[in-house]
Amino acid sequence: MTIKTISTNRSHGGVQGVYRHASRETGTEMTFSVYLPPEAEQGSKLPVVWYLSGLTCTHANVTEKGEFRRTCAELGLIFVAPDTSPRGEDVAGDPAGAYDFGIGAGFYVDATQDPFARNYRMWSYITDELPAVVAANFPADLGRQSIFGHSMGGHGALTVALRHPARYRAATAFAPIVAPSQVPWGIKALGGYLGDDKRRWRIHDAVALIEDGARFRDFLVDYGDADPFLTEQLRPELLAQACSTAGIPLTLRRQPGYDHSYYFISTFMDDHLRWHAARLKGG
Amino acid sequence: MTIKTISTNRSHGGVQGVYRHASRETGTEMTFSVYLPPEAEQGSKLPVVWYLSGLTCTHANVTEKGEFRRTCAELGLIFVAPDTSPRGEDVAGDPAGAYDFGIGAGFYVDATQDPFARNYRMWSYITDELPAVVAANFPADLGRQSIFGHSMGGHGALTVALRHPARYRAATAFAPIVAPSQVPWGIKALGGYLGDDKRRWRIHDAVALIEDGARFRDFLVDYGDADPFLTEQLRPELLAQACSTAGIPLTLRRQPGYDHSYYFISTFMDDHLRWHAARLKGG
Repeated sequence: MTIKTISTNRSHGGVQGVYRHASRETGTEMTFSVYLPPEAEQGSKLPVVWYLSGLTCTHANVTEKGEFRRTCAELGLIFVAPDTSPRGEDVAGDPAGAYDFGIGAGFYVDATQDPFARNYRMWSYITDELPAVVAANFPADLGRQSIFGHSMGGHGALTVALRHPARYRAATAFAPIVAPSQVPWGIKALGGYLGDDKRRWRIHDAVALIEDGARFRDFLVDYGDADPFLTEQLRPELLAQACSTAGIPLTLRRQPGYDHSYYFISTFMDDHLRWHAARLKGG
Repeated sequence: MTIKTISTNRSHGGVQGVYRHASRETGTEMTFSVYLPPEAEQGSKLPVVWYLSGLTCTHANVTEKGEFRRTCAELGLIFVAPDTSPRGEDVAGDPAGAYDFGIGAGFYVDATQDPFARNYRMWSYITDELPAVVAANFPADLGRQSIFGHSMGGHGALTVALRHPARYRAATAFAPIVAPSQVPWGIKALGGYLGDDKRRWRIHDAVALIEDGARFRDFLVDYGDADPFLTEQLRPELLAQACSTAGIPLTLRRQPGYDHSYYFISTFMDDHLRWHAARLKGG
């Protein structure tokens, strides 16, 4: 549970920190960022919002470009941004060096296939190990957690929430991959990490999880209609259909002119955090 | 006046663009960013806020980390972020490759010393050439301009405002260098660009300008008391003394725990933009 402080900077009245620790799950050093709002200095434990990033990202992308601190400071939310995969010289990557598999592309699963099974354990890292590390080192109330993310991280947030509906009080996503079993990014990743048996993919596919009976109180999902990945990789209509059939309330917003970048994410960050806060504080 | 569009992204209801043009002043290609708020799509000309960046920065630092778009969208402000120097293989830099002189460190002066005089003409670029380029390509009302900046860019903003008090309706700064003639960064830069005769430095030194009779309606300056450059390079007390003697209203705020980073700047960006808007719209 020992963590090393890489940096801390006062921001919006609180503290933006970056930390590193030796992960039991991944077998590597893992870096993550935590924003503590000003309220954290008053001693009481605060709700925690988990943000899972997309392909190629580290903790740094949202930490620098996400524009979340003002709202977290106002609402008293702790914001945690993990990395997207194990990293290091000994960690296997994509054999061809592609951006969509391996380093920076852990897809929030526990890999079963060699050579990935040894280090690629992002599911257990995000849902089990890192929450304990955060609770041991920050005034985080694990009884009040919520989760969201972008693209691959939106996929992670939706699947984590659907499999732990009692633990996470809110779940939202920016431009998520909603049905990885049906799109190129997901087929490559789930096949590579979990093997060819597609039945094993279903617990890592939000649409399949819903089809198989998983439920969540409600979702907020934003996507931009100028997102270049919309029709091939994201396919929000598949989530809409699954939620409709299952009776899960889904607020799905098509944002005109927006793309896949942090210029899009930062625009709607405030909306998402207020959605989370209402559910974290309302019970 | 022809500009090339490098990128545009919808953000906070408006458009964040990055552009490049062949500069007459610097003799190089220069890159700058412009945020157009949603109001720009309605056809009327809008006030322009100039943001000058600090040592080592390009347009990108504030564009990605500045957290200015939400407020500019709300207030109807165009936000322009230029580069901090000419760049290119043919542009002379610091002989020792230091970060505080040459590339990324133009100090907003027109150099008179070889080999810098040919390209380092950031004063004329910022006050003359780029405003005309912006007015020719965007719905910018040059009758309503204001200026601010960070560190070296705070120095630039204060000196530009003091020498053009009728043109800029507001001027503020984050952690500015207020008296470059008296601090190591400034002595190196002004000496290198302008030569040894310190009398020529005075029009590029906010404190010296005020001592020599320059005036401005009022200033807002924020600095962090954990800023590692505070006592050696920034020395806000020299500005306080000069403004007090000259009768220039100065709102000088010491922000406890804040450092020199964009975590500091982004925290107070909203305050500064509201200060600018009040003066740009109030007349």
